[in-house]
Amino acid sequence: MRPGVALFDWSSIPEETPQPGVVRQTLHGERQTLVRYRYAPGAVFPVHVHPEEQVTVVLRGRLAFVVDDVEILGEAGTVVVIPGGVAHGARVVGEEEVETLNTFVPRRATAP
Amino acid sequence: MRPGVALFDWSSIPEETPQPGVVRQTLHGERQTLVRYRYAPGAVFPVHVHPEEQVTVVLRGRLAFVVDDVEILGEAGTVVVIPGGVAHGARVVGEEEVETLNTFVPRRATAP
Repeated sequence: MRPGVALFDWSSIPEETPQPGVVRQTLHGERQTLVRYRYAPGAVFPVHVHPEEQVTVVLRGRLAFVVDDVEILGEAGTVVVIPGGVAHGARVVGEEEVETLNTFVPRRATAP
Repeated sequence: MRPGVALFDWSSIPEETPQPGVVRQTLHGERQTLVRYRYAPGAVFPVHVHPEEQVTVVLRGRLAFVVDDVEILGEAGTVVVIPGGVAHGARVVGEEEVETLNTFVPRRATAP
């Protein structure tokens, strides 16, 4: 395949645990970073900030975001856009596991 | 909410039909475009090229990509990265509807 073309399988991508109950898998294009997050019930991702624009697609469950001190309920079927430099965090709502896909632009070197 | 922060619901985003059997919904951040595609069995997206980097997350079903004349089978649980400027197309494999999420960077003004 031409350089830069790639096929990934989530089942082969290493899992990290950046917060208790939060599992993260990361892959990179040249211009963006894609992260799959899974959150156990009760999990919290503390408020933080990064320079990349973040788009979060909620695939399963319910996640309450705090974005610049405003609460936003992200449910399966919704998408949250968070510009770079805006403080945000999230916590699981209810007893269902949450799965999201997050894209970060530009590609990120490290993750908080 | 601060300008640029946004909550979208796929059920409220208009549907287009760029090819027979292909339904597309599009939303934009400042730096990226996110598209949800659904393909009916038998649907084909002809080979085309665009300058944006494309990352396709296959959520359901099976999709055979042709990328720079190489065939890549994308199944649920896989991710295909296609650099900007590389010709690519896709066709549904099997009888299951396909759902993908595609991110394009930089944000695209128009879609083929």
